Amino acid sequence: MLKLGIIGATGYVGEEIVRLLARRKDIEITTVVSNTFEGKPYSSVYPSLRGIFDKVCEKLDIEKIAEKADFFITALPHSVSGEVVPYLISKGKRVIDHSGDFRFRDVSVYEKWYKTTHLAPQLTKDAVYGLPELYRDKIKNARLVADPGCYPTCSILGIAPALVNKLVSKKGIIIDAVSGVSGAGRKSELAYSFCETAGNFKAYGVCNHRHTPEIEQELSLLADEEVLVSFTPHLAPMKRGMLATCYLDLVASGITTEEIRDIYFDYYRNEPFVRVLPAGEMPETKNVAGSNFADIGVMVDQRLNKLIVVSAIDNLGKGSSGQAVQALNIMAGFNETEGLITPGLYI
Amino acid sequence: MLKLGIIGATGYVGEEIVRLLARRKDIEITTVVSNTFEGKPYSSVYPSLRGIFDKVCEKLDIEKIAEKADFFITALPHSVSGEVVPYLISKGKRVIDHSGDFRFRDVSVYEKWYKTTHLAPQLTKDAVYGLPELYRDKIKNARLVADPGCYPTCSILGIAPALVNKLVSKKGIIIDAVSGVSGAGRKSELAYSFCETAGNFKAYGVCNHRHTPEIEQELSLLADEEVLVSFTPHLAPMKRGMLATCYLDLVASGITTEEIRDIYFDYYRNEPFVRVLPAGEMPETKNVAGSNFADIGVMVDQRLNKLIVVSAIDNLGKGSSGQAVQALNIMAGFNETEGLITPGLYI
Amino acid sequence: MLKLGIIGATGYVGEEIVRLLARRKDIEITTVVSNTFEGKPYSSVYPSLRGIFDKVCEKLDIEKIAEKADFFITALPHSVSGEVVPYLISKGKRVIDHSGDFRFRDVSVYEKWYKTTHLAPQLTKDAVYGLPELYRDKIKNARLVADPGCYPTCSILGIAPALVNKLVSKKGIIIDAVSGVSGAGRKSELAYSFCETAGNFKAYGVCNHRHTPEIEQELSLLADEEVLVSFTPHLAPMKRGMLATCYLDLVASGITTEEIRDIYFDYYRNEPFVRVLPAGEMPETKNVAGSNFADIGVMVDQRLNKLIVVSAIDNLGKGSSGQAVQALNIMAGFNETEGLITPGLYI
Amino acid sequence: MLKLGIIGATGYVGEEIVRLLARRKDIEITTVVSNTFEGKPYSSVYPSLRGIFDKVCEKLDIEKIAEKADFFITALPHSVSGEVVPYLISKGKRVIDHSGDFRFRDVSVYEKWYKTTHLAPQLTKDAVYGLPELYRDKIKNARLVADPGCYPTCSILGIAPALVNKLVSKKGIIIDAVSGVSGAGRKSELAYSFCETAGNFKAYGVCNHRHTPEIEQELSLLADEEVLVSFTPHLAPMKRGMLATCYLDLVASGITTEEIRDIYFDYYRNEPFVRVLPAGEMPETKNVAGSNFADIGVMVDQRLNKLIVVSAIDNLGKGSSGQAVQALNIMAGFNETEGLITPGLYI
Repeated sequence: MLKLGIIGATGYVGEEIVRLLARRKDIEITTVVSNTFEGKPYSSVYPSLRGIFDKVCEKLDIEKIAEKADFFITALPHSVSGEVVPYLISKGKRVIDHSGDFRFRDVSVYEKWYKTTHLAPQLTKDAVYGLPELYRDKIKNARLVADPGCYPTCSILGIAPALVNKLVSKKGIIIDAVSGVSGAGRKSELAYSFCETAGNFKAYGVCNHRHTPEIEQELSLLADEEVLVSFTPHLAPMKRGMLATCYLDLVASGITTEEIRDIYFDYYRNEPFVRVLPAGEMPETKNVAGSNFADIGVMVDQRLNKLIVVSAIDNLGKGSSGQAVQALNIMAGFNETEGLITPGLYI
Repeated sequence: MLKLGIIGATGYVGEEIVRLLARRKDIEITTVVSNTFEGKPYSSVYPSLRGIFDKVCEKLDIEKIAEKADFFITALPHSVSGEVVPYLISKGKRVIDHSGDFRFRDVSVYEKWYKTTHLAPQLTKDAVYGLPELYRDKIKNARLVADPGCYPTCSILGIAPALVNKLVSKKGIIIDAVSGVSGAGRKSELAYSFCETAGNFKAYGVCNHRHTPEIEQELSLLADEEVLVSFTPHLAPMKRGMLATCYLDLVASGITTEEIRDIYFDYYRNEPFVRVLPAGEMPETKNVAGSNFADIGVMVDQRLNKLIVVSAIDNLGKGSSGQAVQALNIMAGFNETEGLITPGLYI
Repeated sequence: MLKLGIIGATGYVGEEIVRLLARRKDIEITTVVSNTFEGKPYSSVYPSLRGIFDKVCEKLDIEKIAEKADFFITALPHSVSGEVVPYLISKGKRVIDHSGDFRFRDVSVYEKWYKTTHLAPQLTKDAVYGLPELYRDKIKNARLVADPGCYPTCSILGIAPALVNKLVSKKGIIIDAVSGVSGAGRKSELAYSFCETAGNFKAYGVCNHRHTPEIEQELSLLADEEVLVSFTPHLAPMKRGMLATCYLDLVASGITTEEIRDIYFDYYRNEPFVRVLPAGEMPETKNVAGSNFADIGVMVDQRLNKLIVVSAIDNLGKGSSGQAVQALNIMAGFNETEGLITPGLYI
Repeated sequence: MLKLGIIGATGYVGEEIVRLLARRKDIEITTVVSNTFEGKPYSSVYPSLRGIFDKVCEKLDIEKIAEKADFFITALPHSVSGEVVPYLISKGKRVIDHSGDFRFRDVSVYEKWYKTTHLAPQLTKDAVYGLPELYRDKIKNARLVADPGCYPTCSILGIAPALVNKLVSKKGIIIDAVSGVSGAGRKSELAYSFCETAGNFKAYGVCNHRHTPEIEQELSLLADEEVLVSFTPHLAPMKRGMLATCYLDLVASGITTEEIRDIYFDYYRNEPFVRVLPAGEMPETKNVAGSNFADIGVMVDQRLNKLIVVSAIDNLGKGSSGQAVQALNIMAGFNETEGLITPGLYI
C-alpha cells in the first residue's frame, strides 16, 4: 500500500485528489495538511466526503509530516512549494508538486515571469515536467515531478501533433483559452464571488499570464527551436472545464481536415486519456468535466490555410489533480489508468 | 431638484439605487459615501455606470456629508445605521434607512433577534415601515422611513389580502422562501464564491432568521392579534430574485381559486407595482427581475382546504432599492411610479 | 456476469445508469434501447462516454430485446412502461421500472393522478416499491421493482424517522421541495431552454404534482393511517440536485434538536447511503450531487413546537439512477454499495 | 408620434425591442406580429411586460400589417425577410431588418455563405449597413437599414480604429469571440436546453460561421483592400453578453498600449455608445449587459509586437435590438441616444 501525504489539501486541487483517491485500495492517504483547517475533519471542510474521508487535517510541521508517507503531492502556492519540497526530497521522498516552482528548465524564465527569486534552483534540473504524453519514461523514476499548469496541458496536447509532424509554422501561434472559475482556486475574493462571476465573461492576464512561458518552453522543445505564443486566457461562468482554441498556420496547402485528424489520431493512438474526435466534431467541456480526458478536434480553414485546433480538459482533471494522480500511478508502477478511466459528468 | 445622498453607496443595494436614479431629471445624487472606495469614481467600482455616473466616492464624515443633501438613503449594516441616522434626523434631513434598525415598533424584539442594544430607540416610534401598500400616507410625511426587508416585503404582500379578508387562519402560517445571492450583499466570503454557490441549493437561518419577527410584526398588525410564522429562507444559484411560497389554512371550505384570485385582485386594484396573476398562473422570478414589481399567484388545494400563495419580487427591486425609490417618490411628492415602471429583464 | 438491458437508455436517467455501470466488472450492459438514436453509438449521444461505452443503440423490438438480458431497467414515460414491462415479466426477466406505473398499490390512485387507464394492473400487487431503506428484503426477490420518484425519495427519507417514532402529528405535513432541471428529463422544450431557466426560480405543479400521492402512500403505510401532505415542487437553475424542506408539528413539547438528531441517526444507523448531519448542520445539494447519498438535517423550532427537516439528494442519484443501481445490487445479490460509494462532485 | 410595427416580435430580439420602446412617448408600437402567438397578448408570451405592453399579437397578413405603421423592424430568419421586406418598401415604409438578407453589398457572397438564392437582390444596393459608428449619415435617410450581426458589431468596433489608423497589418487578423445563449434566439432545441448548456463551453461554426463574410466586408471597406479574417465563435453559459478578443499584428514597433488607447479614444470621441477603457483595463460582459454600450480595451504585446483588442457588447443590446433602436432614432430624427443611455445590469 502506497502511503501518500497531501500538503495544501483543502484547496480545490487537493479536494479533487482526495475525491479520486479516497476509495483506492492500493493507496492510503496518510496525512492531509492544511494550516487553515488544522484539527478539523477533512469531511467538515468538504461535506461531500462525509463517511468517505474523515481524516483530520494536520498543520504543516514538515519534519513530522515527512515521516508519514513515501509519496507527497504538494498543492501549494508557488514559492511556498520552494520552501517545502527540498526538505521532502532530502528525506528521500518522491514528490509531485503542483506549483509553478519546478516546471521551468531555465530558472531565470521562472524568476522573470513569477517576479520572485527561486528558492530551490538546485532541484529544477532533475525535476520532470509531469505531462505523461511527453515524459512518461522520465516520470517513472523521477524524484520530483512538476505537475503541469492547466492551460499548458490543454494547449500543448492540442498543438504537439501539428508541431512534431511539421504541419504548421513555428511562428504566429495564437492560443485563445477559457477556464472555469475553479481554476482560480478556493478563494474568498470579491472577483470570484457568485454575483460578480455568474453571467459574466472576461479576458484576464492579457499578455502576461504565467502559463505563457510554460507553454513556450514545451513547444520549443518539441519544435527544437524557440517558439513564442500569443496566449490569452478568459474566465467563463462555470465551475469546471477548460477549452483552448489554437490558431496555427499550415506550412503546405491542400491538406484536409480528415488528413490532419488522422495524423492526430495516430499521434495519440496509445494514449489512454487523449481522445481525438472524428473530423467535423469539436469538443465541449461537458464531455470531459469530472474526468481525466482531453478531447481534441481539428479543422482546416482552407480559405486561410490555417489549422484550428480545439482542445478541452477539466482544469481539475487532466489540468491538475487527475494528471497528478496519473503521474503518481506511473511513478508507483501502478496501472497508469487506475482509478482514472471514469466518465465525466455530462450533466 | 431634490438633493439626495446615498450612504453605504457601493453595496449592491446602493448600486441599484444609483442605477435607478442616475438618469432622473428631478433628483440629483449629490454624494455617494463609501469608506472602502473613498476617492474613487463610482464608475470604477461599477464600470457598468462609466459615462453615466462618475461621481467620486466620499468617506463618511457625517457633518460634512449631512450638508450635501436634503434626503438620504442609508444602506448600512444594522447598528451602523443606528449611529448615523440620528445625526441626519437632528439636522432636519429626511432619511430612508435600509437596515433593520428602524423596522421594529418594539425595540426589545429588535434587540432579541439582532442580539445587540439598539442605539437610537427614541427614533423608532416615529419611524414608518416603508411598505407603500400598507403605509403610503404615513410615508408621505415621514422623517424616517425604514425600508422593509426583502423577505418581509415578499411575504407580507402575498399574505395580506388573505389575512385582512379573514380568509385564512392566523395560526400555522408557513413561509418557505428563496433568494438570489445578491441578497447577501457584496461580500468576499467563501460561502458566496461562485464555485461554492453555482449549482447549489440550501436552506439557511433555519428557525432563526431576523426577517421572521419583521414579518410577524406586520402580519399581527394586519390581523389585529399576534401572528407567528414558520419561516425558512433558502439560497438559490441566481443573482437576483426572490420567491415565497406561503401555506395558509382556509377558514371556510368551498372557496375557489378564482374567488380568492378576485379578492386579491381587488385588494391590489390601485397598486401600481403589485400584479395579481390570473387564476392558474404562477409567478416566476424572471418576470420581475430588474423591476419593482411583485407578482402574486394563488391556488386553493381543495383536498386539504389550504391556500397556497406564491409571491415573487426582485430582492434588489421591490425587495430593497426599488422600494426605497418608491418611498422617496412618495416622500418628495413625485409621481410614485416615476422611474420605476420599467419592465424587468426577462432574459 | 449479470446481463442488463436498459430500455429508454438515452434520457438523463439512462445516461446516469450507464455512467454508473459502464466500468463494473460484474455487470454487462448488453443492450441500450432508444428508438430516437437507433443505430448510433451511445457515445455519440453522450460523448463523455467516448471510449468507455460505445455500444450502438437499438430500437425497441421487445421480443428481440428481451432475449438479450436477464435484468432490465426501463426508463420510459408512464404508460409506455405499462406496455413494455408485462412482456419482460412474462419472459421471466427481472425488471426495475422508473416510471410511475408500478409505484402505486391502489391502481385507482394512479389512474386519478395520472389521468389515464393503467395498462397492467395485474402486475402492481407484486411490484415492490424500490426504496431499500423501507423495502430491502422485498426488493431482494422481487420480479418487478418500481424505482421511486425523486421527490418521494427525498421526502420520505426525511419524514420517516419522525413518523415511525411518533414524534410528529400525521396531520398538516408540508413539504416544500426544489429540483434541478435534469429532473424534467432530456427535453427540447422551450420552458427548459437555458435562457428561460438560468437565473429563474418558480413553483410548478402546485397542488397537483403526481408525486403527491406517492409520498402519501408511503407515509400512510409508515404511520398506519391515512396521511395527506401539502407538497409544492419548485424548479431551481441548476442541473442536478434536490432539496426538500419538511414542516412537521411535534406532538410533545420540550424535545431538542439534539434529541431528534440522535433518533434520526439511530434510525439510519445501518444505512450506507443516508447521512444524518450533526445537530446544527443543514444539507446542501452540492454535497450529494453526483452521488447516491441522502443528507438529512433537523431543527426544532421551539417557538412553534415544529420540527423542520431538510433533506437533500441528487435527483439523478438517490432520486433515480443511483437508487435503481442500488436496487439492482440488492436483487442480484451483489454488495449493495457496489459502485455507489463514490463521493459527489462538490465542485 | 412615430408608428412602428415589429414583425417577428416574439423572439428575444423582438422582446428586447419592445422592452426598450414600450415606455417611449415618441414611439407607438402599433402592431406586434407573430404567427406562433397570434391572438395572444404579448404580455402572456413575456409576462415581465404584464401591465406595460399587453397588445395582442397579430398574424403576418402583410397587406393588413403594412397599413398599420410607417416604420417596421423585422426580426425574421434570413430568406423570410427577403419575402416580407420588399412589400413594405414598395408601400413606402422604412424598414430596419435584422436578418442577414440585406447586409451584403455583393449578393454572391450572401448566396455562398447562406447557401440560398437571394429573394430581393434589387434592394441590396440601397440598403444601408446599420452600424451608426460607420454609416450614421446614410442611415438618416435610408429606406432600408440592415441591422448588423452581433459578432460583426463587436468585432468591427474593436478593429476599426487600428485599421483606419493603419496601425496593424491587414493580414492575419484573428477574432476569437464568445456569445451568451440568447444569441441563438428563442428556440426549443435540445442543444440550447439548460442541462446541455449550463456549465459548458464550446466552439461552434468553426471556419464557416456566416458572420465571417460580414466582418470581412466591412473591414475591407475600412482598409480599402480585401481583408480576410479567421473567426471562431464560442458559446458560453450565460444568457446575454458577447466578447471578442482580436489578435492584430502591429506594423511598426515601439508603440505603447497608452498610445494606442489614446488613438482609440480619439476615434470614438463623439460616439455615445462606445466606451474606450483606460489603458490597463479590460471589458467584462457584465458591464454592458442590458445596455447599448460597447466597451473596448487594448493591450500591446511588446514581446510579439501584437495588438490585442478586447471588445464587449450585449448581443441583445448593441448586438441587435439596442442597435436597431439607435438606427430608428437616427432615421426618425430623434435624439440618437433617446431611451438608450441606460446603465446595464451589473448584477
